[in-house]
Amino acid sequence: MAAQARSQETRSHILQAAQAGFAEQGYDATGVAEICARAGVSKGAFYHHFASKQALFLALLDEWLTGLDEQLVSQRVMATTVPEGLRSMFGLLRLVFAEASGKLPMFLEFWRQAAHDPVVWQASMVPYQRYQALFADLIEAGVAEGTLRPIDPQMGAQAVISLIVGLLFQSLLDPTGTDWGQVAEHSLLFLMTGMLHAPPPAAPPTN
Amino acid sequence: MAAQARSQETRSHILQAAQAGFAEQGYDATGVAEICARAGVSKGAFYHHFASKQALFLALLDEWLTGLDEQLVSQRVMATTVPEGLRSMFGLLRLVFAEASGKLPMFLEFWRQAAHDPVVWQASMVPYQRYQALFADLIEAGVAEGTLRPIDPQMGAQAVISLIVGLLFQSLLDPTGTDWGQVAEHSLLFLMTGMLHAPPPAAPPTN
Repeated sequence: MAAQARSQETRSHILQAAQAGFAEQGYDATGVAEICARAGVSKGAFYHHFASKQALFLALLDEWLTGLDEQLVSQRVMATTVPEGLRSMFGLLRLVFAEASGKLPMFLEFWRQAAHDPVVWQASMVPYQRYQALFADLIEAGVAEGTLRPIDPQMGAQAVISLIVGLLFQSLLDPTGTDWGQVAEHSLLFLMTGMLHAPPPAAPPTN
Repeated sequence: MAAQARSQETRSHILQAAQAGFAEQGYDATGVAEICARAGVSKGAFYHHFASKQALFLALLDEWLTGLDEQLVSQRVMATTVPEGLRSMFGLLRLVFAEASGKLPMFLEFWRQAAHDPVVWQASMVPYQRYQALFADLIEAGVAEGTLRPIDPQMGAQAVISLIVGLLFQSLLDPTGTDWGQVAEHSLLFLMTGMLHAPPPAAPPTN
């Protein structure tokens, strides 16, 4: 095995060990020493790959989101109109809820630490900014194609993301309280309907 | 001063002392002993009023929300239609954001503890359930008066609350990232527009 492949494998072992440790004992209680022991690597190897436990957590988050990103892009490519693309994307939220399920304590512990560290905090905002840009682009395209009202794309994207963040946060706070997948679908469709050119055209728009 | 008034005053002192301690040092780092010292009361007096630090935190939350509840009700009473009432209520969000500002670390620490205690957890969901009921009633009235589409009031209320939770959470995570009051107003109006009878009637509805 080439050195690079071995290095990637070590990185992957560390991420898996950390994820298992965080899930079993929480983020705070799982130290770098324990992650190394679980992964069977030295501290040197750990710090070769990650600057800190917080950096590792951000890498885990990034890994969870990469799969989602690919699916979002493919939904967008397959859709013929923006509202249709948004509808398909909203359908992916069930997967996000399933993936996030049980991770609330881990996130709370991470955020509590990150709130005291501006560098980590900024890094934890990066995925959020990526989704903001993705939805703003999409809404801009919807306005251009005439399926959406001429709303401010940044405002529209903020609204979509705020709603998703709220749904996700509530599903973590109160997982059995309701069918969050169903609530998410309804909620996002209400929001999207509020952005559509009203009334929804029976025929394709002529402008 | 009557015994009851004295007791109320003690309770109020404890709440103020706790709020100051939580704001200065965080929720975790401020113990019952310190709250008692700050308030100038005995531990016996503390436990006469509050079963635990968590119970005290919930009482603080309840106090913050009582003022909001009164304003929400007055907005509802003054409005002639449901959409008008919703619009005024959404305008109150700026106050909520201002009140919540800086409290994120405190909430994260509280939630992290509460997540391990089912009784506290249930209690922390009570205000949320109250707002759910308030918005569901309002949406039901809007459907009945013909200003809103015949949507499921519970779903509509969940959507409104999820959006508010998401906005609030993001404003706490990233307070300087944007003008959250403006984003909130736009977002909630998008959502409400998606619940309106489309197209918005030029004249009052005749049904």
